[in-house]
Amino acid sequence: MLKGIDPLLSPDLLHALAAMGHGDEVVVADANFPAASLARRLLRLDGADAPRALRAILSVLPLDTFTPTPAAVMAVVGAPELVPEPVREFQVLVETAAGRAVQFEVVERFAFYERSRAAFAVVATSERRPYGNIILTKGVIPPA
Amino acid sequence: MLKGIDPLLSPDLLHALAAMGHGDEVVVADANFPAASLARRLLRLDGADAPRALRAILSVLPLDTFTPTPAAVMAVVGAPELVPEPVREFQVLVETAAGRAVQFEVVERFAFYERSRAAFAVVATSERRPYGNIILTKGVIPPA
Repeated sequence: MLKGIDPLLSPDLLHALAAMGHGDEVVVADANFPAASLARRLLRLDGADAPRALRAILSVLPLDTFTPTPAAVMAVVGAPELVPEPVREFQVLVETAAGRAVQFEVVERFAFYERSRAAFAVVATSERRPYGNIILTKGVIPPA
Repeated sequence: MLKGIDPLLSPDLLHALAAMGHGDEVVVADANFPAASLARRLLRLDGADAPRALRAILSVLPLDTFTPTPAAVMAVVGAPELVPEPVREFQVLVETAAGRAVQFEVVERFAFYERSRAAFAVVATSERRPYGNIILTKGVIPPA
């Protein structure tokens, strides 16, 4: 553990988040997500649910301000207009971190998998609720 | 880079500092120090001097409060009573981070090498001034 850093950010997760650059993406994945088969770099947060993992990541990761949609969630199969419970919780966490209203991109299931395959890292959580997945796009840290 | 984290803390250095536990030690080494030959885990901060590296590390690393001397420096060969310029700068940085007066342990050159060999990591800096070396002992982060 380190001073001022969420203890859920493991050494490997901190490493990945710090190594990401502008436009790189990280996926927070629920317990049913095919994380191990898709991920270029797999990080496990067994024990944490998706909002808890998201909160830890957002405590250090700047969201991209070059795009109106720095976060993407998975469309409910057959009912893309529905907003699943974890996504409602993600919305509050992302908007709090961004300090502004943020429109989530809603991505069809297999397109979400393809985008996750290209992501810098996938963080596998113990989230049991369906559609507990979110892709974040990293922004920049301005000069001091 | 990450929000609220000194940009000098590279992904590898952050990983090492986060992975260290209570009592583990990290060495900040000057440019003449035999870092590559001694280190169990070598991390390079070429470009930074030793006080700059120390300041970055102390921004996240808790110092050990179980010992009166959570920091050790190298004794000047033949004149152990001297306090080299980098050590005077270390003193200010360590005491500021600790929020209290801190007595440095002063360790004979070869004993300092042996202790560095056992350390969790050695951070090699571009510090050109002699005796720009310090060993820090990690403390604990209390429950929130």
